[in-house]
Amino acid sequence: MDIQVYLSELKAEVDRCLDRLLPGEHTDPVTIHRAMRYSVFAGGKRVRPILVLAAGESVGGVRGALLHLGAGIEMMHTYSLIHDDLPALDNDDLRRGRPTCHKVFGDAMAILAGDALMTRSYQVLADLPGVADPVRLAIIREIAFATGTVEAMIGGQVVDLEAEGKPVEASVLEYIHRSKTGALLTACTRCAALAAGADSGQLRALTEYGRKIGLAFQIIDDILDVTCTSEELGKTAGKDQKAKKATYPALYGIEASRRKARELILGAVEEVRDLGERAEPLRELAQFVCSRTA
Amino acid sequence: MDIQVYLSELKAEVDRCLDRLLPGEHTDPVTIHRAMRYSVFAGGKRVRPILVLAAGESVGGVRGALLHLGAGIEMMHTYSLIHDDLPALDNDDLRRGRPTCHKVFGDAMAILAGDALMTRSYQVLADLPGVADPVRLAIIREIAFATGTVEAMIGGQVVDLEAEGKPVEASVLEYIHRSKTGALLTACTRCAALAAGADSGQLRALTEYGRKIGLAFQIIDDILDVTCTSEELGKTAGKDQKAKKATYPALYGIEASRRKARELILGAVEEVRDLGERAEPLRELAQFVCSRTA
Repeated sequence: MDIQVYLSELKAEVDRCLDRLLPGEHTDPVTIHRAMRYSVFAGGKRVRPILVLAAGESVGGVRGALLHLGAGIEMMHTYSLIHDDLPALDNDDLRRGRPTCHKVFGDAMAILAGDALMTRSYQVLADLPGVADPVRLAIIREIAFATGTVEAMIGGQVVDLEAEGKPVEASVLEYIHRSKTGALLTACTRCAALAAGADSGQLRALTEYGRKIGLAFQIIDDILDVTCTSEELGKTAGKDQKAKKATYPALYGIEASRRKARELILGAVEEVRDLGERAEPLRELAQFVCSRTA
Repeated sequence: MDIQVYLSELKAEVDRCLDRLLPGEHTDPVTIHRAMRYSVFAGGKRVRPILVLAAGESVGGVRGALLHLGAGIEMMHTYSLIHDDLPALDNDDLRRGRPTCHKVFGDAMAILAGDALMTRSYQVLADLPGVADPVRLAIIREIAFATGTVEAMIGGQVVDLEAEGKPVEASVLEYIHRSKTGALLTACTRCAALAAGADSGQLRALTEYGRKIGLAFQIIDDILDVTCTSEELGKTAGKDQKAKKATYPALYGIEASRRKARELILGAVEEVRDLGERAEPLRELAQFVCSRTA
């Protein structure tokens, strides 16, 4: 398979699904819907929805349900980016090469657009097509847990904020990575497994795959922040270092970080070995995550 | 019945339930959990949970499920207050007589505490005890709709922000009231009916009761903003007028606004006439809303 073709085809499908699931930009009140769409269609790579599709299809899931699930998770991810970029938090002016939501729509509208994307996400999850009610609820629980405060997204952001400017400790760094981005990435493969009706062995394999890929993804993000220019990244480079953020390269150096990422990728591939041919996209995705340069 | 005793007993039960359902303030990361609890336990009257209990019990609902539902909705309401109070939005320093969340914990933590309360609310709704899965999902859909952008809470806040300083128009005022606070108040009685397994006639009656009570409540809020001091209100008085906000008194004057509120209350009481003896708390609540002075 050609991973580039796979990625661009799925991205197009995900974008069409998101377009259908978000209120139109002529729907009143128009400002909030424009702000939501501005950030959702800001050129994201759709890593999470593609992970959902690859994981779900590796255990026989149906694309329609998985697309909606991926779109719901992408809305959740986008809400977290909009809020993280606010002046009160990471104060970022640039995201994927474009001005951030609050730079274009103002802080008030950015706060509300984030709130609205989280809200819309739960609506989408509550209505997943072709998924039984108990599974819909299980997915809502997974996502709410993964984006919550305890060993999860918001908790990771809190610890990240509180750790700024302090000496980096390995245990804190682990917590931040596992919680801030890892939890939702793991939820992608877990929820895909649930939506696809995976058995417990498959669920376990996809959970571990998601956990390892998620951590590798974050380590590589940290490395790219050090080694790339802002132009290459489409966001402000070197800002982790400037903010004295806890990162892998800061703690272990770039080479050891690269080694760690490669180990995780190999481990992730190993996890899904028993899933056979249908897991080929998961293997390709893992290599892709490891080799990306921006 | 003694409405004051009824209110204070239910408020105590709701507070105990909220205490059980929120992460403890020694749970890591502690700051976010303290911020969440600070705002949830800031002396709110628990209007929404009490409305849920009174409505649900009027059609034979069980208190356990209704308490959890009320607590989930109160978390949702509290998230909206925390975000609305932020400097970027209404910029309010005082709420229920105490400094607002961002004054105590900073803007970043207030934004995240709001996000976390919304997230926790969906967890609570997904786990409502003694409620069947399809009903849990129906309740999640109701709440997500009521707090969303289209004729709902966030949409109302957007239009309210955009209307500031402009001449008040009746249709805009209607939209703001119906959406910003009305939608969630109506969702209280509707979700209570769903949780209680109400029939369609009962659901319709409780929906209309909620709609009317909700609008009356908001009109009286507007009146109190004009006629009370900040000390009496526990929040900054006269700020609607100062911000040139669209309000009933600004558009129709205080006397006509009082008359409108009384009409709505009588209408609400009429709606639940057929529910008989068990709806007595709903009738008392209606009178209480109308007579409150702060």
